[in-house]
Amino acid sequence: MSVTTKATIASFGGKLLKLAHQSKVTGTEMNFNLYLPPQATGKESSKVPVLIWLSGLTCTPDNCSEKGFFQHGASKKGIAVLYPDTSPRGANVQGEDESYDFGSGAGFYVDATNDPWSKNYKMYSYVTDELPSTVFENFKQLDSSRVSITGHSMGGHGALSLFLKNPGKYKSVSAFAPIANPLKAPWGEKAFKGYFGESDWQSKGAEYDSTELLKKWKGEPLDILIDVGTGDNFYKQKQLLPENFTEAAKSIGQEKGVNIRYQPDYDHSYFTMASFSDDHVDHAAKHLFA
Amino acid sequence: MSVTTKATIASFGGKLLKLAHQSKVTGTEMNFNLYLPPQATGKESSKVPVLIWLSGLTCTPDNCSEKGFFQHGASKKGIAVLYPDTSPRGANVQGEDESYDFGSGAGFYVDATNDPWSKNYKMYSYVTDELPSTVFENFKQLDSSRVSITGHSMGGHGALSLFLKNPGKYKSVSAFAPIANPLKAPWGEKAFKGYFGESDWQSKGAEYDSTELLKKWKGEPLDILIDVGTGDNFYKQKQLLPENFTEAAKSIGQEKGVNIRYQPDYDHSYFTMASFSDDHVDHAAKHLFA
Repeated sequence: MSVTTKATIASFGGKLLKLAHQSKVTGTEMNFNLYLPPQATGKESSKVPVLIWLSGLTCTPDNCSEKGFFQHGASKKGIAVLYPDTSPRGANVQGEDESYDFGSGAGFYVDATNDPWSKNYKMYSYVTDELPSTVFENFKQLDSSRVSITGHSMGGHGALSLFLKNPGKYKSVSAFAPIANPLKAPWGEKAFKGYFGESDWQSKGAEYDSTELLKKWKGEPLDILIDVGTGDNFYKQKQLLPENFTEAAKSIGQEKGVNIRYQPDYDHSYFTMASFSDDHVDHAAKHLFA
Repeated sequence: MSVTTKATIASFGGKLLKLAHQSKVTGTEMNFNLYLPPQATGKESSKVPVLIWLSGLTCTPDNCSEKGFFQHGASKKGIAVLYPDTSPRGANVQGEDESYDFGSGAGFYVDATNDPWSKNYKMYSYVTDELPSTVFENFKQLDSSRVSITGHSMGGHGALSLFLKNPGKYKSVSAFAPIANPLKAPWGEKAFKGYFGESDWQSKGAEYDSTELLKKWKGEPLDILIDVGTGDNFYKQKQLLPENFTEAAKSIGQEKGVNIRYQPDYDHSYFTMASFSDDHVDHAAKHLFA
C-alpha cells in the first residue's frame, strides 16, 4: 500500500511527514502525520518504537502536530509519533458534515454497524490494523513490535478502549481528558446511537466503552496515566466521567494501576497537552524501552 | 490604563492571559497575551523579568502562544512572555485589509509618517512605550528593569531594530528568520513606501533597518542570536538577507557578537520556533539574570 508524502517539515531535530494513502477500510483517502525522531532519520538510524496519538472531536492530524509538543519529548527519547485523522473525509454520507460531534471529525474509533455509516466509518479497524500495517510497510525504521497509544478526549476514549480491547497489542496507554464512559455521556450516546443504531447502541457501545471494558479486564497489572484538568468545561459537564473509570479499576482491584491526575485549572485545550506531553512520552518510553 | 482579561489559561504551571486595552497610540483596542510563569503566580511570587515576542506577518498574539513553545522554557527559567499584536485592528483605514503584507497584521513595528497610515499605524511607539507601560502598571510582579526582546520574520526585524535603536533598553535580543535588511527586500520596500511615502521611504526606512542601524552601532559589545532555516522559502527568495546583517557586523568589528545559526532544512513556520525556542529563552535568561 503506497503512501504519498505531501510535506516534510523539520521539527526538533527530526522530520514531521504529512502523508496520505488510499484506505480500503474507509474507502477514502486518509491523511496522517508521522514524526520521525532524529534517531530514525540520521545515517546511523536504528529501529525506533511508535507512539500513536488519537485526537479529539473536530481535529485533523495537524492539531496535535502543531500544538501538542509531543515532538519535544519524542525527539529526546527516540520515539516516532503517528497522528491519524479522526474520521473518513469526503465519504459522501448524507449528514456527515452537519455536526461537530458526529460524522466527519468524529469517528469515535469504532466500526459502525448502522447504515449508512457502516460502509466508511470503520476507524477502529483503520487505526488498529490498516494504518499501522501501511506505516510499518513503508517505514522500515519503525519497530512494529513496540507500539504505545495515547490521545485526547474522543481520542482518549479511543486510546483506552483500543488498549483494553487488545491485551498485549500496545506496550502502554495514557490519555488526556478521555471520554472514559461514553455510554453515560451525551457525546458517547449520540455517537453510539448513530454508528450502532437505536436498538443496539448500548450493547455494541459496551464493546468500546473503556469503563465497561476495564470492569472485565483480565490482563496483566495496569499502569495507565490520565490527566484531567479541573478547569475543563467538558469535565464539569460530565462528558468525561473519569471517576467512573476509577470505580471500575477499584472493582477489579486495579486501582493502583490507574493514575488519574486532576490538574488544577487546566482546560480542555491543547495548552494542557503541551504542558504535560513530556510526561506522557516518558510514560510510554518507560514501557517501550523496558 | 486599564486592561481587560478575556481569558486565563493554565499553561506549563503558569497562566497565559488573553488581554486587551484601549490604546491611545493606535486609537484602537489592542489585544495582547501575557504568560506569567509559575514564579509570578504562586503565593511566594517574586518579580520576574519579561521577554517580548514580536510576531510576523498575518499573526495575532495567539500564533506564538499556541505554537511557539516559549512557555516551556519561560516556565523553567521564571520569565514572563509578552505577545503583542502585529498591527492595529479595525482602524478603518482604507485598504488596510487588502494585503497580507501591508496594513492589518503587518505593522512592521514602525511609526508611519505617511497619510492615511500615520494616524493609527504607530507600532514602534506602541511596543516600545505604551504597551510595556500598561503592562508594568497592571502587573506588579513584572520587573520593568529587566526586559529582553525576540521575534520572527517581520517580528525579527522588529526585535533587532528596536534593540539597536534603543541601546540599553533591552537586556538582550534574538530573532528567528528576521527581515534583517528590509530596505533591500520586497516586503520591506512595500511596507516602507506605504508607511513613509514614495519620497521618504529610503531615508525614514533606514531609521528602522537593522542592517543600517548595526553599521552605526556604538553601544557595548553585542551578543545576538539568530536562527535561519536553510529550507525557508523566504530566505531563498531574499526577503530576509541575514548575510547583509553579518557583513554589517563585520564592518564595525562585531562579527563575534552576531551568531547566525543556519539550521539545516528548517522552514519559515512555527515548527522552527518550537524546535529552538528553548535556546532563545536560554539566551534571554543569560542576560536577564546576569
